[in-house]
Amino acid sequence: MNTYGTRFRLTTYGESHGLAVGGIIDGCPSQVRLDMEALHADLARRHSGAPRQEDDNVEWLSGIRDGVTLGTPITFVIRNNNTRSEDYDLLADCYRPGHADYTYQKKYGIRDHRGGGRASARETVARVVAGAIAKQLLAPVEIHAETECFKESEHESVSEDDTRGGIVSCRITGLPAGIGTPLFGKLNAQLASAMMSIPSAIGFEMGVGFKAAEMKGSEYIDRWSNTLTQSHTDAITETNHCGGIQGGISNGMPVEFRVAFHPVATLPRPVECLTSDGSLRTIQIPGRHDRCQVLRAPVIVEAMAALCLIDNIL
Amino acid sequence: MNTYGTRFRLTTYGESHGLAVGGIIDGCPSQVRLDMEALHADLARRHSGAPRQEDDNVEWLSGIRDGVTLGTPITFVIRNNNTRSEDYDLLADCYRPGHADYTYQKKYGIRDHRGGGRASARETVARVVAGAIAKQLLAPVEIHAETECFKESEHESVSEDDTRGGIVSCRITGLPAGIGTPLFGKLNAQLASAMMSIPSAIGFEMGVGFKAAEMKGSEYIDRWSNTLTQSHTDAITETNHCGGIQGGISNGMPVEFRVAFHPVATLPRPVECLTSDGSLRTIQIPGRHDRCQVLRAPVIVEAMAALCLIDNIL
Amino acid sequence: MNTYGTRFRLTTYGESHGLAVGGIIDGCPSQVRLDMEALHADLARRHSGAPRQEDDNVEWLSGIRDGVTLGTPITFVIRNNNTRSEDYDLLADCYRPGHADYTYQKKYGIRDHRGGGRASARETVARVVAGAIAKQLLAPVEIHAETECFKESEHESVSEDDTRGGIVSCRITGLPAGIGTPLFGKLNAQLASAMMSIPSAIGFEMGVGFKAAEMKGSEYIDRWSNTLTQSHTDAITETNHCGGIQGGISNGMPVEFRVAFHPVATLPRPVECLTSDGSLRTIQIPGRHDRCQVLRAPVIVEAMAALCLIDNIL
Amino acid sequence: MNTYGTRFRLTTYGESHGLAVGGIIDGCPSQVRLDMEALHADLARRHSGAPRQEDDNVEWLSGIRDGVTLGTPITFVIRNNNTRSEDYDLLADCYRPGHADYTYQKKYGIRDHRGGGRASARETVARVVAGAIAKQLLAPVEIHAETECFKESEHESVSEDDTRGGIVSCRITGLPAGIGTPLFGKLNAQLASAMMSIPSAIGFEMGVGFKAAEMKGSEYIDRWSNTLTQSHTDAITETNHCGGIQGGISNGMPVEFRVAFHPVATLPRPVECLTSDGSLRTIQIPGRHDRCQVLRAPVIVEAMAALCLIDNIL
Repeated sequence: MNTYGTRFRLTTYGESHGLAVGGIIDGCPSQVRLDMEALHADLARRHSGAPRQEDDNVEWLSGIRDGVTLGTPITFVIRNNNTRSEDYDLLADCYRPGHADYTYQKKYGIRDHRGGGRASARETVARVVAGAIAKQLLAPVEIHAETECFKESEHESVSEDDTRGGIVSCRITGLPAGIGTPLFGKLNAQLASAMMSIPSAIGFEMGVGFKAAEMKGSEYIDRWSNTLTQSHTDAITETNHCGGIQGGISNGMPVEFRVAFHPVATLPRPVECLTSDGSLRTIQIPGRHDRCQVLRAPVIVEAMAALCLIDNIL
Repeated sequence: MNTYGTRFRLTTYGESHGLAVGGIIDGCPSQVRLDMEALHADLARRHSGAPRQEDDNVEWLSGIRDGVTLGTPITFVIRNNNTRSEDYDLLADCYRPGHADYTYQKKYGIRDHRGGGRASARETVARVVAGAIAKQLLAPVEIHAETECFKESEHESVSEDDTRGGIVSCRITGLPAGIGTPLFGKLNAQLASAMMSIPSAIGFEMGVGFKAAEMKGSEYIDRWSNTLTQSHTDAITETNHCGGIQGGISNGMPVEFRVAFHPVATLPRPVECLTSDGSLRTIQIPGRHDRCQVLRAPVIVEAMAALCLIDNIL
Repeated sequence: MNTYGTRFRLTTYGESHGLAVGGIIDGCPSQVRLDMEALHADLARRHSGAPRQEDDNVEWLSGIRDGVTLGTPITFVIRNNNTRSEDYDLLADCYRPGHADYTYQKKYGIRDHRGGGRASARETVARVVAGAIAKQLLAPVEIHAETECFKESEHESVSEDDTRGGIVSCRITGLPAGIGTPLFGKLNAQLASAMMSIPSAIGFEMGVGFKAAEMKGSEYIDRWSNTLTQSHTDAITETNHCGGIQGGISNGMPVEFRVAFHPVATLPRPVECLTSDGSLRTIQIPGRHDRCQVLRAPVIVEAMAALCLIDNIL
Repeated sequence: MNTYGTRFRLTTYGESHGLAVGGIIDGCPSQVRLDMEALHADLARRHSGAPRQEDDNVEWLSGIRDGVTLGTPITFVIRNNNTRSEDYDLLADCYRPGHADYTYQKKYGIRDHRGGGRASARETVARVVAGAIAKQLLAPVEIHAETECFKESEHESVSEDDTRGGIVSCRITGLPAGIGTPLFGKLNAQLASAMMSIPSAIGFEMGVGFKAAEMKGSEYIDRWSNTLTQSHTDAITETNHCGGIQGGISNGMPVEFRVAFHPVATLPRPVECLTSDGSLRTIQIPGRHDRCQVLRAPVIVEAMAALCLIDNIL
């Protein structure tokens, strides 16, 4: 479904080359004065190195009056102005490799082929808007994500005819112990789901993650610190291999996780597409696409982390 | 919460050293004759190398008559016979490192300290029971999980005073294209959540996973096969780097993923525990614990994959 | 929450005197060509005898292309053009009797006092839009609601300085046996909830309803008809006292129920309002309000019935 | 589905003549000492005038230790000891009039025909158990339900060969203003759904209910009381025609509603049943059935009201 969350619920809508994208937030507390400047700063971060310059003009249809939330559904609309739909005519009966064209067609029997339609990363703009609001509600909890092991020089030297993946790491500080639920709603399971819902995400790990599979228990286990003082509300550990969550519940240490993204599926060179009659056809995919979307990903990772946390805290 | 799924819903219950563990399955189709032999074979697989010999005698309280499902809630009970609760008395005011003792205490203000209580891996027996039923409903879709890169000899040489992690890989065949949902309910996101809900899981990846972060787009993208023939219902690709899911929806190729497990948190040697008054105390954790629970994990991974899939297919 | 349904989900938004009202429909099947004429006919029915002439111009932001559904969220916007917000200034610190002003203030600590804000019957326009789509999906099941025991002459003679309640009866034909679920999701329980969610609804009954409380079992029980022939798929009964549902599941007979509505709470004469400082103040409520909203109710009752049924059938 | 609630969730299970009935409560707060005496008093009230003497011995499998809740799922089992299943053999291919036999068969293609199986009122014992716990959590909010306009003498004079319906009225005091949600989750809509989920319920009304349809607005509207003093936290009204809820949210006045029950469907005399081959057969329904189940209904009405309220308050 197109809804995330149970208490603070974001429903997103919109096709990449339709009239608009946007969302409804249901469950936002009332009487919150929103910081629109911070929100637009996050929208700007989402454009890092992006060739399609979206203006992201946000219209607020409901739920806010004089900049303050009413407790009713907050609806926002971002019009798709800068679209060149005719570019995509040659994809009407053609499935690009590495994209969701074929799977959407199989599931729905129909799709908006223009720019990926609903499957486009364009949809993430609605997540960033809602995530920015969630971050404001979460203060003083802070969420910081960044691309990892990715040198600026390396990015620049990326050849013009290929794309790249990458890893985003995220660190959440200020979260008290006791947040999350055990069993099927583990906070780490919720974070995994939230992150894997981001387009191009292909891996998720908490703390030391896959490295833990090769560690001995005596190396892995986070020892209690003997520096427990009154200045800490929660107990602290000497290391944080587990990433701040035990049994699905936060332990008061920073929550740390990493998300792997595969390379952008749209190559800047001709590729073989599958046609609806089963043959292959080599074409140059139209549209303006990123070489490395991982540069845009941190603010989206933060948004999903914020949506996940606020849903556990409200 | 303690419920998994929305159509085929498993609610599990029970503390490790309480009277019983078990579950209710709501949403199982009616008129299905259950293969109890296959179900018990899965329960036996869950005991691989386990020191605590649970007899796992399953009593069926409702939802089944003469071996056939009624479409009403299926309730099952597995009594905890082989418990030595008094072993745990010294943990009543003590939080083990690497366990959920502290986080449960913080969340609930109370916990059943005996053997991990609700957080014990004992709970996974209910998942295996429900998963075995889900597998039967899924046929001819097949789910196969196994430990990876873990030599039997290596296991045997594990020293007596330490524990180990490991990786389980899983492969699902026979799943048609079109299963799953886009956006927040992506099939890969659902699988990630299901796997991370297993005790000790710390990482999840689809297909080539974290390796994709270092690949170029031209290497990563799965090319359409030119061997498309009438013998295949769905299109096939030359490689399966994405792990069989695109845009959150299955593409007809095998669904492949890996789950990393951290080492068992209970070391077979004295460890420093945090007491409720903030001091540290070195004790030998009681109970009979695995050296390497990853040997038991494949059948649990299969169970959660089955529960995830049946919820998408019903 | 502001969402109705689990499979075919309508989320509505908007304050009466904000920028717009509308909704998102998530879960509408793909490849459905919508009959916009029928939809607008329902919108027109909603204006029966209404003094505020809303133009109800529906803008479709997503989910539909060339008049056909894509399977993605359908978002629609109806701008609030004909509003005179300044009329309401005197209600800013004043709670009208019989309205939700006081309860909203207690729950949210804030409210949009203009025209009832979110609590206004204006919101039902979104239900009618979604209901019209649901009706099209339900064909050949037919839903017909009408005001009962309410003579046109009687309406006309309603004095200018008072308001009236009324009863709407609804009949659903063509619904096969076997729809609905037992226990807590009984089809009659779902219908009761759907109807009681309509503004001013105050009572609900299936079949003979409250009269059944005074009947003997031998009078009440619907006898099987001995006219069972091959021309009927489902069994039929001689009477339909139960209203077509038994044990929460449709039995193939027409589903029949009645909904009682209390009089419009806004009287066309001065009333005593409670002010935020606890005193009473007599004022004339501004705005253009119905004398008898029950004339508008049938199409809303049909819409909610359609939303309820489609959610059970998809 | 077989689950009620979203925060305090009761899942019930069990067939009338299977091994057991019972439930799981998920979401009960931790550290609550349960009053088992009050719980058993409610179970006893459920037996008012019931011919089948169930012993209702409750076994607690999980979630409670030393009489105190752990915050984990509370599972309880009530064995069906006093069953005479062979009585029902003649109903195996026979659908009783006024029962759910036919609709269950249509929905599931199978049913446990013994004593109504899952559709039996026997299931309500699990609601009473959970409701008794919910009531304890709700204190000092009090819920009181009773049969209305039903003279004891009248009950005694009921002829031996017929059954009767009745009305239960319920009054909730101590509930503060601000409880409930607007729109689709209105507290009155939730109560309507909860009540209509009780076997044999056929009508529901808040406050003056159906009478409101014949009232003028000036008669119906509850006027603010001018006796507002500091001794009341919430505003009060001179009358309570609306039943204590406005716009779906409690207003601080007592919440008042009525539930109509149709007569018990099992007549104490031969009735015509529909057989699976479409013919009619006159038989005497076996089993020990109530003449007037409305005597048992108040404690069930209270239980469902308590489950509804606690779900809104937690």
